[in-house]
Amino acid sequence: MTLANTTSTPHARRRSALAARLGTQPALIAAGAARPRNYTANTYPFRASSHVLYLFGADVAERDGFAFYDGAAWALYLPRRDPDDALWEGPRPSFAEIAESTGCAVHGLSELDRALRGRDVATLPAPDLETCETLSRWLGRDVRPRRFTAADEALAEAMIALRLHHDDAAVSELRLAAMATDAAHRAGMRATRPGLRESSVRAAMEAEIIARDLTVAYGSIVTTHGEVLHNEQHHRPLGERDMILADVGAESPGGWAGDVTRAWPVAGRFSTAQRELYEVVLAAQRQAIEAVRPGVRYRDIHLLAGRALATGLCDLGLLRGDPAELHADGVVASFFPHGVGHLLGLDVHDMEDLGDRAGYAPGRSRDPAPGMRYLRLDRDLAPGMALTIEPGIYFIPAVLEDPALDARTGGRIDRARAAAFVAAGARGIRVEDDLLVTADGHEVLSAAVPKTVAAVEAAMQG
Amino acid sequence: MTLANTTSTPHARRRSALAARLGTQPALIAAGAARPRNYTANTYPFRASSHVLYLFGADVAERDGFAFYDGAAWALYLPRRDPDDALWEGPRPSFAEIAESTGCAVHGLSELDRALRGRDVATLPAPDLETCETLSRWLGRDVRPRRFTAADEALAEAMIALRLHHDDAAVSELRLAAMATDAAHRAGMRATRPGLRESSVRAAMEAEIIARDLTVAYGSIVTTHGEVLHNEQHHRPLGERDMILADVGAESPGGWAGDVTRAWPVAGRFSTAQRELYEVVLAAQRQAIEAVRPGVRYRDIHLLAGRALATGLCDLGLLRGDPAELHADGVVASFFPHGVGHLLGLDVHDMEDLGDRAGYAPGRSRDPAPGMRYLRLDRDLAPGMALTIEPGIYFIPAVLEDPALDARTGGRIDRARAAAFVAAGARGIRVEDDLLVTADGHEVLSAAVPKTVAAVEAAMQG
Repeated sequence: MTLANTTSTPHARRRSALAARLGTQPALIAAGAARPRNYTANTYPFRASSHVLYLFGADVAERDGFAFYDGAAWALYLPRRDPDDALWEGPRPSFAEIAESTGCAVHGLSELDRALRGRDVATLPAPDLETCETLSRWLGRDVRPRRFTAADEALAEAMIALRLHHDDAAVSELRLAAMATDAAHRAGMRATRPGLRESSVRAAMEAEIIARDLTVAYGSIVTTHGEVLHNEQHHRPLGERDMILADVGAESPGGWAGDVTRAWPVAGRFSTAQRELYEVVLAAQRQAIEAVRPGVRYRDIHLLAGRALATGLCDLGLLRGDPAELHADGVVASFFPHGVGHLLGLDVHDMEDLGDRAGYAPGRSRDPAPGMRYLRLDRDLAPGMALTIEPGIYFIPAVLEDPALDARTGGRIDRARAAAFVAAGARGIRVEDDLLVTADGHEVLSAAVPKTVAAVEAAMQG
Repeated sequence: MTLANTTSTPHARRRSALAARLGTQPALIAAGAARPRNYTANTYPFRASSHVLYLFGADVAERDGFAFYDGAAWALYLPRRDPDDALWEGPRPSFAEIAESTGCAVHGLSELDRALRGRDVATLPAPDLETCETLSRWLGRDVRPRRFTAADEALAEAMIALRLHHDDAAVSELRLAAMATDAAHRAGMRATRPGLRESSVRAAMEAEIIARDLTVAYGSIVTTHGEVLHNEQHHRPLGERDMILADVGAESPGGWAGDVTRAWPVAGRFSTAQRELYEVVLAAQRQAIEAVRPGVRYRDIHLLAGRALATGLCDLGLLRGDPAELHADGVVASFFPHGVGHLLGLDVHDMEDLGDRAGYAPGRSRDPAPGMRYLRLDRDLAPGMALTIEPGIYFIPAVLEDPALDARTGGRIDRARAAAFVAAGARGIRVEDDLLVTADGHEVLSAAVPKTVAAVEAAMQG
């Protein structure tokens, strides 16, 4: 592997920026461990923690390694490899080569103890216990997922302040992720034919990502039952009248996420009912996207999308009454229970390992009301932020068959009309794009992915 | 989901058989937790522990669930789902439905504490700390990966006694895994063309597996550098003179592993050097396979393969001297450092979570000598065992460039000859098949995967 000299690279600049915020406060950040699947040597594909990927990049972020800032400079502490490791894993850059390429000192793990001794060191708890346990051993205190000391909080806030506003290198990576995601969705549209299974469409989509030597940023959703929000099943046959909902995103070489959802008709042409519902979601998404610009509060975009959906649902006869009132009363949440989007970056829900600290501005917190409690982002937008816009309409059996539904909504939901859409295969439709907030508005990073009815139908023809 | 009534199914019979071995000794076996990738909600695809898959099957083996044998009967303790879970994950069978389908009592997790109280309960430590920590809490003792109490050991031995000899249902699953694995290898052969990257071949192979709604049983190796035994890189371009080594296996619907390796020339035709080396590996594999029958000690098959490779390496001029002597002196290990195979079952290295207990018969243990220390199986074969046979020849730079090589091998390795094979793109060749030991010999489960030079070349034409 050739490592470019990166002392003046984006990673080096990020390390300097974090150091400037930390001052003399030391910090230890773990790359993380490979997670066992069924036994220790059979692991899921290793992916370093987003924080270490952010500071050092994927080439350097080795499993079981640590980045340490001692209050003055950054260093890497990496496991020493024994000769048999080369047999199984092949040659890797030496510590000297990594030091040369990063401009940071590189030490064996056994030297970390001495570096930490007597210091009050901040850390970021890893999402997995293996890594937390290692951190606990090194730091002599109980480090646990989602538990932060005051020093940890300060480190988390410093990371958030940086990672919230993407630099040029980050934007390039997000573009690479969006490009591969585009290819995946086009392949899925082309591969769709009645009689195949959902898994065949998923295979066509993921093959585009794997062929680029990339991975998915999250578990793919490719389903004829989009009303199950995190549907992990892919066994169903594709019926002539079904629609597919595909929420599939590629991760760039550096670890940055794409996150795009499209819905398309198995038959290759939208039926009237399918198109009507799709256009309502699309119109709400367009309005929400138009609102994305610096200074706008994200929660207001969520509410805007909800009101647009309310209007569309009334137009379709699914809701009865005044759209504004229906929205204010939370009736829309029966069809649109989730948030309109979230931060996007090295994580598909960026920095969700830090809880709501990244998504929610200081002083703001989750509203437990239906339709609000799954909103993952409530900040005032600023240039450099990346986020998704993803409204949806879902006919959820557990909601629509709830005996208390009429009482709760004042009988304003037309269940028979909902059943007609379900019969037309339009069980759940979401349209999701990835956006970058720019100085004077926004850019849709995933703009190439076919979205209009005409574009989707054309893409399905190949 | 429709759950068949399974009270008289293979799973029920396995539970009865394990209960018979346990007698009145209670046992708690965890299905395991979903492993976080970058934050808690972004997990790797969940796969239940092989022990629970064995006893209850994939439809019932829920994340965070437990199977408990109280010394008389089996019961399941499963997390209770709140209404919002249905929103995200869709409808699941009720406890009553699972009880009906399994013939076992089904309880919420909160009732497990009472069931365990005052009992000395055996368990099997999970490979991940999250699950071990949960087990520790339930059992009031420190359960850790790879740490076994006397009661745990007895439970492990009882599981091994069962899982070592595959029942008909297990064999059916192994056949399904082999079929999908066959499709993957054929797709990889067809997709190979100079100028593509390794990742394109991998994509073609994994797409066959994903399209069948299956997953890979382990991280795929698809590489032009087969001399790196666990090569996880797929970025290299395919040169005209390269060979691909593909070690890719599908996991069946019930969680059973396929594990097949083939090597093929990027050009579509084996060059003379490529064919010569390939035929040596193939001849050694044939001899080893022929030896597989009840009563044979697996270590002897490993030694047989090593001797066959020694003879072939001498014929090719890579080794100088008497093949038997070269083998006895461990010189062959420079080209064939790993074991000739391992157990196969619900894990690709079956039951490796139990250490060498499954692979090594009582009283036998690893031999630390080169060429022996990676041998994962040393049992006398018996009907119903499944295993792999996978000799290989590798030109490993770290080995061949070692200044001590000549001294260690008495100058009996011809480095220039080795360099010629490397230049011909034959850097590492392994041929691996999955076998079932039968009453009077063996069956090659993966026999359909093209293997002879002629069959591979034909498969590459599509």
